[in-house]
Amino acid sequence: MSKKINVAVIGASGYTGVELLKMIAVHPNFELTYVATSEGETTLSALHPALMDVLEIDVSKASAQDVARYADLAFLALPHQTAMGFVKELMELDVKVVDLSADYRLKLETYEANYCPHIDTKNLEHAVYGIAEMNREEIKNARLVANPGCYPTATILAALPFMQYRIKDSSIIVDAKSGVSGAGKKLATTTHYVSINENIHAYGPLGHRHESEIEEKLEVGAGKIDFVPHLIPLTRGMLNSTYMQVEGDFDPIELLRAYYKDEKFVRIRETPVDVKSVAGTHFCDIYAKKRGNTLFLSSAIDNILRGASSAAMLNANLMMGLPEHTAIPFIAYVP
Amino acid sequence: MSKKINVAVIGASGYTGVELLKMIAVHPNFELTYVATSEGETTLSALHPALMDVLEIDVSKASAQDVARYADLAFLALPHQTAMGFVKELMELDVKVVDLSADYRLKLETYEANYCPHIDTKNLEHAVYGIAEMNREEIKNARLVANPGCYPTATILAALPFMQYRIKDSSIIVDAKSGVSGAGKKLATTTHYVSINENIHAYGPLGHRHESEIEEKLEVGAGKIDFVPHLIPLTRGMLNSTYMQVEGDFDPIELLRAYYKDEKFVRIRETPVDVKSVAGTHFCDIYAKKRGNTLFLSSAIDNILRGASSAAMLNANLMMGLPEHTAIPFIAYVP
Amino acid sequence: MSKKINVAVIGASGYTGVELLKMIAVHPNFELTYVATSEGETTLSALHPALMDVLEIDVSKASAQDVARYADLAFLALPHQTAMGFVKELMELDVKVVDLSADYRLKLETYEANYCPHIDTKNLEHAVYGIAEMNREEIKNARLVANPGCYPTATILAALPFMQYRIKDSSIIVDAKSGVSGAGKKLATTTHYVSINENIHAYGPLGHRHESEIEEKLEVGAGKIDFVPHLIPLTRGMLNSTYMQVEGDFDPIELLRAYYKDEKFVRIRETPVDVKSVAGTHFCDIYAKKRGNTLFLSSAIDNILRGASSAAMLNANLMMGLPEHTAIPFIAYVP
Amino acid sequence: MSKKINVAVIGASGYTGVELLKMIAVHPNFELTYVATSEGETTLSALHPALMDVLEIDVSKASAQDVARYADLAFLALPHQTAMGFVKELMELDVKVVDLSADYRLKLETYEANYCPHIDTKNLEHAVYGIAEMNREEIKNARLVANPGCYPTATILAALPFMQYRIKDSSIIVDAKSGVSGAGKKLATTTHYVSINENIHAYGPLGHRHESEIEEKLEVGAGKIDFVPHLIPLTRGMLNSTYMQVEGDFDPIELLRAYYKDEKFVRIRETPVDVKSVAGTHFCDIYAKKRGNTLFLSSAIDNILRGASSAAMLNANLMMGLPEHTAIPFIAYVP
Repeated sequence: MSKKINVAVIGASGYTGVELLKMIAVHPNFELTYVATSEGETTLSALHPALMDVLEIDVSKASAQDVARYADLAFLALPHQTAMGFVKELMELDVKVVDLSADYRLKLETYEANYCPHIDTKNLEHAVYGIAEMNREEIKNARLVANPGCYPTATILAALPFMQYRIKDSSIIVDAKSGVSGAGKKLATTTHYVSINENIHAYGPLGHRHESEIEEKLEVGAGKIDFVPHLIPLTRGMLNSTYMQVEGDFDPIELLRAYYKDEKFVRIRETPVDVKSVAGTHFCDIYAKKRGNTLFLSSAIDNILRGASSAAMLNANLMMGLPEHTAIPFIAYVP
Repeated sequence: MSKKINVAVIGASGYTGVELLKMIAVHPNFELTYVATSEGETTLSALHPALMDVLEIDVSKASAQDVARYADLAFLALPHQTAMGFVKELMELDVKVVDLSADYRLKLETYEANYCPHIDTKNLEHAVYGIAEMNREEIKNARLVANPGCYPTATILAALPFMQYRIKDSSIIVDAKSGVSGAGKKLATTTHYVSINENIHAYGPLGHRHESEIEEKLEVGAGKIDFVPHLIPLTRGMLNSTYMQVEGDFDPIELLRAYYKDEKFVRIRETPVDVKSVAGTHFCDIYAKKRGNTLFLSSAIDNILRGASSAAMLNANLMMGLPEHTAIPFIAYVP
Repeated sequence: MSKKINVAVIGASGYTGVELLKMIAVHPNFELTYVATSEGETTLSALHPALMDVLEIDVSKASAQDVARYADLAFLALPHQTAMGFVKELMELDVKVVDLSADYRLKLETYEANYCPHIDTKNLEHAVYGIAEMNREEIKNARLVANPGCYPTATILAALPFMQYRIKDSSIIVDAKSGVSGAGKKLATTTHYVSINENIHAYGPLGHRHESEIEEKLEVGAGKIDFVPHLIPLTRGMLNSTYMQVEGDFDPIELLRAYYKDEKFVRIRETPVDVKSVAGTHFCDIYAKKRGNTLFLSSAIDNILRGASSAAMLNANLMMGLPEHTAIPFIAYVP
Repeated sequence: MSKKINVAVIGASGYTGVELLKMIAVHPNFELTYVATSEGETTLSALHPALMDVLEIDVSKASAQDVARYADLAFLALPHQTAMGFVKELMELDVKVVDLSADYRLKLETYEANYCPHIDTKNLEHAVYGIAEMNREEIKNARLVANPGCYPTATILAALPFMQYRIKDSSIIVDAKSGVSGAGKKLATTTHYVSINENIHAYGPLGHRHESEIEEKLEVGAGKIDFVPHLIPLTRGMLNSTYMQVEGDFDPIELLRAYYKDEKFVRIRETPVDVKSVAGTHFCDIYAKKRGNTLFLSSAIDNILRGASSAAMLNANLMMGLPEHTAIPFIAYVP
């Protein structure tokens, strides 16, 4: 076997962290040499009991110097703002980075309007937005990939093939439904079991930060995406219902098939998609129906894999010159 | 105490049937004198074990003659098409009817385009659509009330106050999410626990029969409602997200408050509504947010109470000259 | 209508608190005159949005003096140890109390071995253990009722009729399963949605504090109850499986029926019980099967009603000379 | 790469069928050459939409002749009684078989007392009970392996190390909790979402057919296992609580560790186990606590993997001389 590539995971305690670790555990080319959290001094199986006897490694307190010492590539699963501090250091230390935060996804002005002042504008300019179906070649050559948000991933993959048919200046409605893992591991009233079970509600309607990310990547201009996310009572999975006003004569299913004919991880369905068929995988399943000028798109992903960690892994594969689908999960959590 | 009014429940085996029975069990003016299913020959506690020692009555095979013998008013919780056969007979026998099916909700042409040929067009003409907030006075005088569909109820109550601000000819997007009780008790692959749990999907997008009901009652013209329902992993509750294109200067929350200021069972919320706060009650909770020309409405109801059985009970109260809120549930299933 | 009795709820923010409030809202004889939490300065609908427009009252910071000023009887839904401080004061101020904590349930030595030092031993001596089926007459005359724990309630009601048949000195196994509302509203990793959903585990096996409560009330002696509770993925409801070694010839269903023939809120079932049929009510449903010397008992209750708040309400009714079933819920949360 | 071994899956439509297919899809040595259901004439992705673009093969109507033509080993995921008809034919045709039904698990008399008359007693004599931790060497040499039941697997692995400490003739209580996938894909009132969600109940107490299987394999004699299974609201996973009366001085955790020190897929936990940590894997996690003469064992497995399909795959690996852990899943479905 060829020499392994050393990789690090920074931010290993959360849900995206554990998904990265699970893929690395079966990756034939990646060797996990460094794992860190903001607090350190623990072990993987203490953080994630399911990994007992599967992947045992000490967990350090995150240090860029140590990452550089032990790894060629780092996955950063840190909160925005914290992430850019690390990225800046890691870039100087010549470590390749897949950053799962929002810090390098947006143009400077969009970022600062939605998040906070940016302290690493130099690297921001060169970061590549990590949807392989859009930017495969750029990712191959990137030293820093900004891994996309979960809602933008599901929306962009569904809408992109239809943008040329969109009625000029019309709003795109995105009604999104996310499982609770999307809200993270942090304790909050909104993620208490009793708050979620037998319940559903919208949150952050018309103003969520992923709205700007979708607008920028679909190049529709500010205020053209009307985005409303909902929290639903399931752990993993995301279903986005997108409504576009379109003109022109096309069969939306045929158009999707043609657009994604070479993409293994986009599946076109003839009936409305469900999240169960993609949970545990990198697949994005898409269904479309057109009636009059209305185009309805239904896209489903695993929010913490395709919406975060498996996208990051695929980006890392591309960056390191490996076959892009190495260790990318394709067997769904069914039944 | 004044003399009781005798009532019958036809179609007592399903979810809307049991909800009717639960309200009758605590109704001070209604006496349950006749209960039937299509098969008969059982008891209530055999059909609904939770009602053991609460409400015990023999269950007959449905017969219009028997209804007329025992009751002044009948609740019909039968499938569409079956219902109109019974209604026709009951009207001739001078029994007042609240029909929970779709058979008397729509104009003849709309009905036949969406369901099947109508065999009781005479009574169809006089039936009143049973949303008290729209048609209170007509319901009081009606002999036959067509109880509204669950999706239309949640949508109409949210959208009605804003119809004057709607941009002419614009489409209204209704992205609805329903609990599984809405799919009924019948066994089907789609309602198997394993199909629903940890899953979500759209069904019948752009073409569900409730679309026409909403169009007709909101008077927007055919093809102007783009309605997509979703099945979500919870038993009871419905959340509708409605997106309208509007013009004019108004505060949507203030407008809702003014519109519903005399309505006890419509609550205006300042944050996005959730289904848990209305489950088990007749409340419709509504939230609204406007940005530019987009109006987002979020409305929550208990799909089998406000969306069916408690609406039927309130209609029956009005038809019989009782205080309309008698036995109408207002204490939610929380936590 | 006769003059109302003024009641107070101390500890109104939690799940047992909201259940008390919901019953008081429909109680014809109780007037809610004082509501408090440990922090105060809020309103009921802020604490419990489902109660908006249903029950509106200011929420104070808990003070025994104020309770005495406004109320004849107080429901205390406070943590153990905090409760006894209040009870002591309230007894001196001549307020009747139903205490939902553990502070007055046990003999002094048992309490101190399981909880903490007791500071109100005088009142402890006179407190009555509040299971009406065991101590109805004593409760009527009590000034202080110790409301029983949820696990003990479900276990004791099932086991009590069979104690004379128990093989001397044999252990009683109690394998209990509780919904998450039993763990309370406090944020904890164990009650995060993602921890509970699609999961189940035992906790505190052979050593939970309710073990001693069961032993003491069933009078079996220390160490004779082997109690293991489990946390299951549902909000409300509790199912206890109890295994006894018995001798003698009896039909367990017949025996249960005879034992509880005058008790409205104990239902004997011929098939294994489920929690859905009792959720939302004060019912305890019991099933039994005997094979050889093994007796299997399956009992189901709503953990926060029969296991806490509706038991408290029934006790309060008895203490105030009212019909004991006033405002006690009997219509289940089905479907 | 060495030549592949051709395998068949008979009974591919159910939950255990799809799990077999998912493992074969990643198995480096097995080639799937024949797939059948009782009805045939479909495709895998029609049966299991999640497998679209993952594993595409025509699905035939089951025929033993065809199995023999295409495969060296067959996995039989058929109902009991149907299975033995096939096994008999396949044995004559010299195909190795892992039978997931109950037909070859028990001694003749035990089988016929619990199921139905046996028509293949000759092969029954030579079938090996497929728990590798008990019968590894026999499985290697077997032509027919009887794959164990899910409840027996979880119970036996936990109890086996302690059998020498069991008090003679004492009953072993097994209180088991299973996810709904264990009830299969067949439509039934008991598996309707609304029946399961927010509910829990025992079924078949003291008399389930797995009771005899446990008794026979643990060699305790008839009537010594008191087994009560419960259906809980989750899709996959099983938690068994086992209560034994023991004597002797031992540390149960240490004893378990020593007993399973060479077994990769049994993990000993120091805190009560949960099903989430094993869901999606072949692990059996075990926790034990001893107090006085009572030993409490908590064991968790994935009911359709370790309780069926991954056990079958491991058995097939052994029978074909492959490393036993080939394609056996070890990465859990977390979060």
